Amino acid sequence: MPQTPAPSLLWPGDHRAGRLASEGAYLDALLLVEETWLRGLVEAGVAPADAWDDDAWTTAVDRVDPRALAEGAESGGNPVIGLLGQLRGHLPEPARTWLHRGLTSQDVVDTALVLVARDALVAVAEEVDAQVALLAALADAHRGTVTTARTLTQPAVPTTFGARAAGWLQGVLDARDRLAALRYPVQVGGAGGTLSGLLEVVGPGEASERVARALAVRARFADALGLADATSWHTSRGPVTAIGDACVTATDAWGRVARDVLVLVRPEVGELGLAATGGSSTMPHKANPTAAVLLRRSALAAPGLAATLHAAAADQVEERADGAWHAEWAALTDLLRRTVVAARHATDLLAGLEVRVESMAARAADLHEDLTAEQRTLAAVAGHEPGARDGGAYLGLVDAVVDEALARAGHRSG
Amino acid sequence: MPQTPAPSLLWPGDHRAGRLASEGAYLDALLLVEETWLRGLVEAGVAPADAWDDDAWTTAVDRVDPRALAEGAESGGNPVIGLLGQLRGHLPEPARTWLHRGLTSQDVVDTALVLVARDALVAVAEEVDAQVALLAALADAHRGTVTTARTLTQPAVPTTFGARAAGWLQGVLDARDRLAALRYPVQVGGAGGTLSGLLEVVGPGEASERVARALAVRARFADALGLADATSWHTSRGPVTAIGDACVTATDAWGRVARDVLVLVRPEVGELGLAATGGSSTMPHKANPTAAVLLRRSALAAPGLAATLHAAAADQVEERADGAWHAEWAALTDLLRRTVVAARHATDLLAGLEVRVESMAARAADLHEDLTAEQRTLAAVAGHEPGARDGGAYLGLVDAVVDEALARAGHRSG
Amino acid sequence: MPQTPAPSLLWPGDHRAGRLASEGAYLDALLLVEETWLRGLVEAGVAPADAWDDDAWTTAVDRVDPRALAEGAESGGNPVIGLLGQLRGHLPEPARTWLHRGLTSQDVVDTALVLVARDALVAVAEEVDAQVALLAALADAHRGTVTTARTLTQPAVPTTFGARAAGWLQGVLDARDRLAALRYPVQVGGAGGTLSGLLEVVGPGEASERVARALAVRARFADALGLADATSWHTSRGPVTAIGDACVTATDAWGRVARDVLVLVRPEVGELGLAATGGSSTMPHKANPTAAVLLRRSALAAPGLAATLHAAAADQVEERADGAWHAEWAALTDLLRRTVVAARHATDLLAGLEVRVESMAARAADLHEDLTAEQRTLAAVAGHEPGARDGGAYLGLVDAVVDEALARAGHRSG
Amino acid sequence: MPQTPAPSLLWPGDHRAGRLASEGAYLDALLLVEETWLRGLVEAGVAPADAWDDDAWTTAVDRVDPRALAEGAESGGNPVIGLLGQLRGHLPEPARTWLHRGLTSQDVVDTALVLVARDALVAVAEEVDAQVALLAALADAHRGTVTTARTLTQPAVPTTFGARAAGWLQGVLDARDRLAALRYPVQVGGAGGTLSGLLEVVGPGEASERVARALAVRARFADALGLADATSWHTSRGPVTAIGDACVTATDAWGRVARDVLVLVRPEVGELGLAATGGSSTMPHKANPTAAVLLRRSALAAPGLAATLHAAAADQVEERADGAWHAEWAALTDLLRRTVVAARHATDLLAGLEVRVESMAARAADLHEDLTAEQRTLAAVAGHEPGARDGGAYLGLVDAVVDEALARAGHRSG
Repeated sequence: MPQTPAPSLLWPGDHRAGRLASEGAYLDALLLVEETWLRGLVEAGVAPADAWDDDAWTTAVDRVDPRALAEGAESGGNPVIGLLGQLRGHLPEPARTWLHRGLTSQDVVDTALVLVARDALVAVAEEVDAQVALLAALADAHRGTVTTARTLTQPAVPTTFGARAAGWLQGVLDARDRLAALRYPVQVGGAGGTLSGLLEVVGPGEASERVARALAVRARFADALGLADATSWHTSRGPVTAIGDACVTATDAWGRVARDVLVLVRPEVGELGLAATGGSSTMPHKANPTAAVLLRRSALAAPGLAATLHAAAADQVEERADGAWHAEWAALTDLLRRTVVAARHATDLLAGLEVRVESMAARAADLHEDLTAEQRTLAAVAGHEPGARDGGAYLGLVDAVVDEALARAGHRSG
Repeated sequence: MPQTPAPSLLWPGDHRAGRLASEGAYLDALLLVEETWLRGLVEAGVAPADAWDDDAWTTAVDRVDPRALAEGAESGGNPVIGLLGQLRGHLPEPARTWLHRGLTSQDVVDTALVLVARDALVAVAEEVDAQVALLAALADAHRGTVTTARTLTQPAVPTTFGARAAGWLQGVLDARDRLAALRYPVQVGGAGGTLSGLLEVVGPGEASERVARALAVRARFADALGLADATSWHTSRGPVTAIGDACVTATDAWGRVARDVLVLVRPEVGELGLAATGGSSTMPHKANPTAAVLLRRSALAAPGLAATLHAAAADQVEERADGAWHAEWAALTDLLRRTVVAARHATDLLAGLEVRVESMAARAADLHEDLTAEQRTLAAVAGHEPGARDGGAYLGLVDAVVDEALARAGHRSG
Repeated sequence: MPQTPAPSLLWPGDHRAGRLASEGAYLDALLLVEETWLRGLVEAGVAPADAWDDDAWTTAVDRVDPRALAEGAESGGNPVIGLLGQLRGHLPEPARTWLHRGLTSQDVVDTALVLVARDALVAVAEEVDAQVALLAALADAHRGTVTTARTLTQPAVPTTFGARAAGWLQGVLDARDRLAALRYPVQVGGAGGTLSGLLEVVGPGEASERVARALAVRARFADALGLADATSWHTSRGPVTAIGDACVTATDAWGRVARDVLVLVRPEVGELGLAATGGSSTMPHKANPTAAVLLRRSALAAPGLAATLHAAAADQVEERADGAWHAEWAALTDLLRRTVVAARHATDLLAGLEVRVESMAARAADLHEDLTAEQRTLAAVAGHEPGARDGGAYLGLVDAVVDEALARAGHRSG
Repeated sequence: MPQTPAPSLLWPGDHRAGRLASEGAYLDALLLVEETWLRGLVEAGVAPADAWDDDAWTTAVDRVDPRALAEGAESGGNPVIGLLGQLRGHLPEPARTWLHRGLTSQDVVDTALVLVARDALVAVAEEVDAQVALLAALADAHRGTVTTARTLTQPAVPTTFGARAAGWLQGVLDARDRLAALRYPVQVGGAGGTLSGLLEVVGPGEASERVARALAVRARFADALGLADATSWHTSRGPVTAIGDACVTATDAWGRVARDVLVLVRPEVGELGLAATGGSSTMPHKANPTAAVLLRRSALAAPGLAATLHAAAADQVEERADGAWHAEWAALTDLLRRTVVAARHATDLLAGLEVRVESMAARAADLHEDLTAEQRTLAAVAGHEPGARDGGAYLGLVDAVVDEALARAGHRSG
């Protein structure tokens, strides 16, 4: 059985995803799909009772050789044929005969990838929830912390750090909505999407009874895996592209936060600090905003992967695509894993943010004349003295902006 | 005022989108935003009653010079400053003074783009509904039309054309779901996302009363435009990326149908025909599947545009992005317009599909031995004679597959 | 005949490309291809002498209706069939008969797009040459202008502004190399890439003689257009992807310069100024770095278009692609036009750069202890007093860095 | 020291790349860079002679713990700081002190990635050369093998399989040209691109002498690694994007071949066969064109990765990018590794192609009337009997098309 390999040297922070969306997780999921299906056939009385044996299964699984699997995947184009060959070599009858009956390779790969995605995105959703709480708290706490709104890099009007954090929060809530809307369906289609193999083996009886039995096997399979029961979607890849789009919506939100952080921690600006920074062996003064740097990296790499999933979805043909299906696996898994890593970096970043209230205030005070130029123009339009109506702060609806974001977050103002 | 320019020579079918998501539609929308805002200020009693005059507005709008607008957009980076300059040049006081007060350029551009998107996607949704009806009817009518399921280009098992159409329908329903989940928010943030300008001009009174008045102006503005009232999302671009993702989910679904059509209309396969085909002046036998070709084109070009919207979303910074915002406009508009065109091509394609039932049957009959090979294997596993249970058709759950898709479509079997 | 339409409101600066890579330029090119081919047939004695008449051609061209062309392009999938129909409707015999003989639509579209690309990239290359001169002069003039090297947003060691400009220059030289390596081939393949139509009409004689005559027609055609004579590349799209890659290499180089500028013009940094900036009607202090913003926009949008060209190149099939060819036209033309616009913005930006030598010096002096920390570490390693060897400037090989870039640029130090 | 991990289950065929462009290869390259630099310092007399010891180095390298490296890479953002920590922990003085002196992390990562790229692309170039030979032989051997040219999926005119193979060859030659134009430069810039650290340690003397000594160290370093000596390109990423573009140009060429193969091996077409096909456990008749399927997968996934490299190149800033640099590593390495795999699949595919001459001939004969329709039209235009000039074959310049491709390939007709 596979050991978790060393995390990637090419993607610092990769270990933060642990086994989620790894090669190992994929193999685990392939095995879980075959196990759950075989158990289901036995439980439904389709396969004989002795086709399932815990110990025999464990023994067979322990003998799986991932390197041989990977090398063998080339001839058939996916690892399932080889996996079945290995498992059948280690399983006794009648398990050997009944293993995988009614499924096709694509059913196994697709359902396994959905399991991998579900597990990864549960972890992401936890981070997102934590970020929502952190950002809501930041927005609320700093709703009155005056700072400089900048547009096109230049100072514009006053704002508060709470309002800016409320903007970050909006992005994270957009990601939360996308994640919450995902569905995780099983894939059970058989050789041509018609479940003909399953119907062939479910046993004798009236046609309607046999159909009901087959659908019940599918439903129990979904239930056992915690996935949604579903019609086969072998060449209708909406579930995959929706997952990809949700991931990139999340990396967008974090990348956008990172961009702000990377401006505001510049020593010339100095309006934010970070709890954890990276150093240099020969330049001890360096306090590199590594978490923000790595988030931005994630945000740069994600759109291309999500686009590949769309390109693959559009290139499906007949009952199994001639390359487009295969293009999904690495793109989806890389995107998922990196989203988990980024989720954790983002939580850390937000948790360790040091808001330099005095620096913000001092700069806004220095720029006061500029930042209130618009106010003077508009006061003249409206026919009153500039600042007469708000004591000169010109902070507009920052409270409402914060409150609206908190309300959407389901967060009660502190 | 702008004339609709000639449709693009570079995107055959472009005229099918009429004015939707065109340069002209964008300018219309910019003007509608300014009009609606100014009317709203007047209606709310913020601006004087004579700041709005129908005739004066119409006159001013008629004098807008789009070429000068476009050329002038360069210095400020967007066309709003120039548009205001032109309108103010043509409007009398006090309209001239009150025009745009409380807004910033980004509010106008973003709200205009949301209007453009909404109008385009209403049209797309109509096509999608028509396609759902067409596909549901095809799936239902051909639930028993036997044909050859092919995987990785090779014949696998029997299926029916209805089951294949049900698969196409799944993709279109995925697009329908994405489109239905979109929200179309106004953008009202003012210079720094705090609506400070609006608050400055809403008039005197208690702070809470002024805030309520400002929020009411925003709400009425949204209502008048038929958009959702919303907190400013100036650098949280989830609404934009969601629109892009929905578009590409739609072009994926159509592209996937086109791929099938482009295989099945090959004369060597001959299982589908098309009502409308393209010809050649010197090769009169040619019946080119042009609609499918153009759909595939659309599907190839869309993912890159949606990815650009994500890259831009991730690159937002502070209160207005330094390039990422500007990168959205053409990408979004091109994607929208092409999605409208593709939607109409897809409806036409489906409406004109000629299902060659006899060809399908004949090939499936020729391949009978191959297509039922799996059945023989599985019958042996299950211990019965091949074909004993279904008369040898080996069509599996095609009826259930069709019925599940029809149910999701909300379509009652005919 | 087409008028140049108003430049795009959605791409500020679009007018800077004039007619280059516009719809109009494409139509011009389509007409030039047909004209050149017909003249060539006459000059080669293949078509009768009276098949070419300047006045008749001009008259026919003047009557071309671009809107009808665009609308008609849908049925055949490209505008050539419709263009031939219109021209034939207006041309007398025998021009009507001989027009386009030996060509296929793809020959005309592809050769026209190569012409469009060539013209656009000649203009880009001129800008690149101007930028090389500007950057070489900046690098040379500021080789001693001390400033702060920053890595990961944080101050690292001293450098000079000349060394930084030399880095920008490297990127522009990379683009120059890519542009210089492009080839612009004619496309002449006929209906199936075999030039069979041309061979049929070149006249009687021995086979070898006829082949030679056909190849001579192709060669003269290429020569008359200023393009490279070439074997048909109808489904080998290397020439197209190379053009796309060169464009994006250029926008990368300019985008990278813009990123620096957008940091260095922040008032908190203040090390660069811009001659031309954008303003705000209500915030008179704003000096927005619009040219840099628009360059960054261009750099964000370009990679997705170049990737679409690659996706299309990979999806060619048989003797004419079923959608991938059609996906190239808008992607390529948009990319070209935007590259011209960006080229001109980049030249302007560089020409108007204000190097704030004192600000740079002052900051570097303030940070002196930090910026020379590495020097102290390394002096200790090497066993000498820090700064003993270079008077403490710690500027390393800045002169060599500048000289190497100037040498590559072919620029003689001033 | 790292073992080669199991190849990827998510990218069937991954093992075909062996150690090329793997995590292990990257670590090897990082170590080789540090080794070569340290040796170079010693050889140049900059570091003391006893700073290099083969055995000490081997011992230290053997103790490197890749998992710790990967986990440690997070805090600094790259693995070099951790690698130096580990090596220094295992090396004796003065090697410990002199290790890495004059370099910065980016120098090591970039030079290592260039080494990884060079090694991978040497392997790709070998495959490309083999493919050129195979395709040239196919084109030559089948220059007279009549088959059906198809455009937009429909039969058009006759061609020969040799002419089609010549088209495939053009694409592979485009890739060969791109690969041949690549340069593989060392990266030596030090902390800020000025090589200040190196200059500090090269020893005493006149400034010009010290500069010459520093440049000599860089030149010897390049020479020892077999790379090009080069000015620092730390934020001018042309060398990286050129590598990416060359990779995707290659996968385009192979993907395009695969598309043809995937049409022509359909049993309904049957004009090509494959030596190696994939099977199905329950459908023994299946002969899946797996190599073509996997090539198409590669072609679908590559453009997004190359586009990510461009996006990263455009997002460089100052003297080290704040995320864009980090985004390159995995994108580049994945792209390289998959290009090696695809290169080997493509060679195998071409080597195992079975040209079904009789099927081609039979179909072309069946379609004779259609395929020569253009000929009849053009013969009428030219005023002769159809087929009078070429015996009715209507094969045009197929010989010239083949010969021109062979000439470009440098292949002598057999």
